[in-house]
Amino acid sequence: MKLQRDARTFEMEHLLTYYECTDAGQPSLSMILSMMTLVSDAHSAALGMDTATIQQTGGAWVITEYDGELATRQPHYGEKVILGTKAVAYNRFFALREFYLLDEDKQYRYAHFQAMFVFMNLQKRRLMSLPPKLITPFKSPMEKRLPRLAKPTEVEGKPTDERDYQVRYFDIDVNHHVNNARYFDWLLDPLGSEFLRTHRVKRVVIKYQHEVQEGTIVTSRYQLNELDGQVMTAHQILVNGQVCASAELTWQKMV
Amino acid sequence: MKLQRDARTFEMEHLLTYYECTDAGQPSLSMILSMMTLVSDAHSAALGMDTATIQQTGGAWVITEYDGELATRQPHYGEKVILGTKAVAYNRFFALREFYLLDEDKQYRYAHFQAMFVFMNLQKRRLMSLPPKLITPFKSPMEKRLPRLAKPTEVEGKPTDERDYQVRYFDIDVNHHVNNARYFDWLLDPLGSEFLRTHRVKRVVIKYQHEVQEGTIVTSRYQLNELDGQVMTAHQILVNGQVCASAELTWQKMV
Repeated sequence: MKLQRDARTFEMEHLLTYYECTDAGQPSLSMILSMMTLVSDAHSAALGMDTATIQQTGGAWVITEYDGELATRQPHYGEKVILGTKAVAYNRFFALREFYLLDEDKQYRYAHFQAMFVFMNLQKRRLMSLPPKLITPFKSPMEKRLPRLAKPTEVEGKPTDERDYQVRYFDIDVNHHVNNARYFDWLLDPLGSEFLRTHRVKRVVIKYQHEVQEGTIVTSRYQLNELDGQVMTAHQILVNGQVCASAELTWQKMV
Repeated sequence: MKLQRDARTFEMEHLLTYYECTDAGQPSLSMILSMMTLVSDAHSAALGMDTATIQQTGGAWVITEYDGELATRQPHYGEKVILGTKAVAYNRFFALREFYLLDEDKQYRYAHFQAMFVFMNLQKRRLMSLPPKLITPFKSPMEKRLPRLAKPTEVEGKPTDERDYQVRYFDIDVNHHVNNARYFDWLLDPLGSEFLRTHRVKRVVIKYQHEVQEGTIVTSRYQLNELDGQVMTAHQILVNGQVCASAELTWQKMV
């Protein structure tokens, strides 16, 4: 199958390993998001924007929101899949990117995500306007108004359950941050293995508000809502009472 | 570079992803071991022994010991590496296998491990003799006596430090067990990020004694010894006071 590669779009093959998969043999949400970062890094590198070029600006790309859907059928470990990404549009501070996970023949779409990127000054820990030399090579349209991604429902009142997690050394990635994808291991674990083995994620909306620091303890809490047989969970990741990320997941009960 | 593939040996290319690497951009010990399982599964599958064939026997391959060395230079994320494995020898209950991690040109060996495998009856949770149809295809010699791997130094007396870890749903792999490689995240984390950022592993010896079950809490404790500038750490993973794994690591201080 021919891979599409131009300024705006980048596709790569990926052999799904067993350690990217859960006990059901299918990729975990955490690993799906990791693969998306993988293909967007590869896209940047293919256009000459490697890690060194990005670091020279004193900043780093940071994802603030995802809105994604997973299909009923999911790939299995040992399967060759296609990871794809497209630079959709950008303005002064935001860049919208699309991600997809396809079967080897590009006939079935396992997952489709939209992601909002900002650029953060690493020293001042605050937003910078997107450096032109890091955004113009994608040849995506500059648009004054970008579409807004859906906002997750917040946990209100007493959570259904919560658990604490120590941020570990191995949660820190090459950008010296807790990787975005890791949040999903914390978000989902409190649901328990019985729930996770009998439900599959249909849709996920997540908003990252504050960076989780190395060495801290995060609290992951959620509220479960069921309406007309539709299971929805609202999640928060907190550090010292401050909400660092909020997420909403829609589930399908597996029969 | 030509990959060697015959009954005894199997090599595959692997693109090192950022999520297989630590904040130093190099693969974590946990991920190096995961890649070894990846190539040995691929080896079995290439000889017609896929997951279904193995499951029909009612058992599963289990690794009981590793003895490995890591070279001074380690690969970097984004690098294409070669994963290799060779079936060394076997007897009625044990099979010895060799693993290696090479650079793309097969000129530099990043890691070399020996691993001892047994075959476990999954229902009775005890050893079975190796099923001939799962071992003879590798065409490795049947040997009455297999070489013994080194034994790790045990933690004796008061440990230098210890930490507890909850076994999470996402620690469970497709074999419905806590993956062998995961133990290294627990083993190393108590050493702390400062130690881990200033020392590199030269040698690792680990012995798995008892399976860690889902939902339990493990205690990871270690003792640090320094002799003639050589740093050695002895580690244990315990559940309810029972030692489930022991490991010994030799370190080199990075300058």
